[in-house]
Amino acid sequence: MKLVLLRHGESEWNLENRFTGWTDVGLSDNGRLEAAQAGRLMRDAGLDFDCCFTSYLKRAIHTLNLALEAMDREWLPVEKSWRLNERHYGALQGLNKAETAARFGEEQVLIWRRSFDVSPPPLDAADERNPAGLPAYRGVPAAELPLSESLKDTIDRVLPYFRDTIWPQLTVGRRVLIAAHGNSLRALVMYLEKLTPEAIMQLNLPTGIPREYELGEDGAVLSARYLGDADAIALKMQQVAAQGKAKG
Amino acid sequence: MKLVLLRHGESEWNLENRFTGWTDVGLSDNGRLEAAQAGRLMRDAGLDFDCCFTSYLKRAIHTLNLALEAMDREWLPVEKSWRLNERHYGALQGLNKAETAARFGEEQVLIWRRSFDVSPPPLDAADERNPAGLPAYRGVPAAELPLSESLKDTIDRVLPYFRDTIWPQLTVGRRVLIAAHGNSLRALVMYLEKLTPEAIMQLNLPTGIPREYELGEDGAVLSARYLGDADAIALKMQQVAAQGKAKG
Repeated sequence: MKLVLLRHGESEWNLENRFTGWTDVGLSDNGRLEAAQAGRLMRDAGLDFDCCFTSYLKRAIHTLNLALEAMDREWLPVEKSWRLNERHYGALQGLNKAETAARFGEEQVLIWRRSFDVSPPPLDAADERNPAGLPAYRGVPAAELPLSESLKDTIDRVLPYFRDTIWPQLTVGRRVLIAAHGNSLRALVMYLEKLTPEAIMQLNLPTGIPREYELGEDGAVLSARYLGDADAIALKMQQVAAQGKAKG
Repeated sequence: MKLVLLRHGESEWNLENRFTGWTDVGLSDNGRLEAAQAGRLMRDAGLDFDCCFTSYLKRAIHTLNLALEAMDREWLPVEKSWRLNERHYGALQGLNKAETAARFGEEQVLIWRRSFDVSPPPLDAADERNPAGLPAYRGVPAAELPLSESLKDTIDRVLPYFRDTIWPQLTVGRRVLIAAHGNSLRALVMYLEKLTPEAIMQLNLPTGIPREYELGEDGAVLSARYLGDADAIALKMQQVAAQGKAKG
């Protein structure tokens, strides 16, 4: 079974180092270049797909569209799900590092950043950013929609979608591409590679670098690799780690 | 029931006045502007959708993507089908008007252009452009795939998809957007508006101008209109007609 994970390229808010979460910001110019380059890497590696999955957020959708364009594969079926969205950062969304520290204190920020199952303060239900009031989520039962998430919460809503919707495609031999976010992809990497909470929190997927898996029938990882130049990947992972581990 | 039809913007080959058909050429710069403008027209008219349909050809897919981007509706579900592709122009594909006349004679070109049920000469089955050998159509039974089509053939393969897949969405109240091609959209207009073959051949949908339908429960057209400035639409329809009626 063939599966590729692709983290979206740089967004407009990555540049400003703000907590983005479910805020629907677009790609930066650099992010668009990363997405097209990811498509060329997959094409040049001889990869092809039968179906694609992405989130409801435009930075992932545009990344997928640009990668498919570079592969001349616009016609592939694409399914979008809110369950592949980035971690919801609650009331931190929109704040940059300095603003977060000023409002909540350095110590608290460290706790949020280093913990697996502690959520940031939730959005107020009356907040205009409450997903239950946004058009994109009108088809989702409001009780399913978060006002804030820990990494564990994110994993808990990503995995049912993987098991119920993506896994059946893999088992019938379809080659799958998933374009999503740092933390929704962490959920998949943790599940596939059977990582501990500590290990997954250390992992920073590089943006725009496809990660290719070959899986056995039982889902065991037979091989896993990043596509592209090893030095460029190492540099990118350092940059992503330096931006703040839990950001997306 | 709410339905909008959108013909893709100008493609790279429209500029060269070549028979395009199933040739997968991209939008021109002007075509991309038309697509985004179509999205703004729909947004400004207060239109919203629940699901979208397009063809396997990138000029329609990109038109839809750009229109959804302008509407901030990237997250809407999109289903792609080869049945919404442009008419297949057989051995005429790739030829411009002068080349076609030189090879087949002015008189024969007029017959193809004015007839409802006469197909251009087919592609040779061994032609590298035979859809049965292209990656995009690997999921389609080869017997379904054309080597050339009359307008009637195009209509005959578009309508089953409309009736079996799109119509059930409309009947449960979903608002539908279809981004496709001059001739695959003619099939839908003919069906919805109960036009004769003569009438549908006279109709030239303007590119990038959304056509909005309100339908009764039995599918009867309650209202139909183009969005946008009436003079601009009239000018565009003249331009499209002047390009050659059956081209796409």
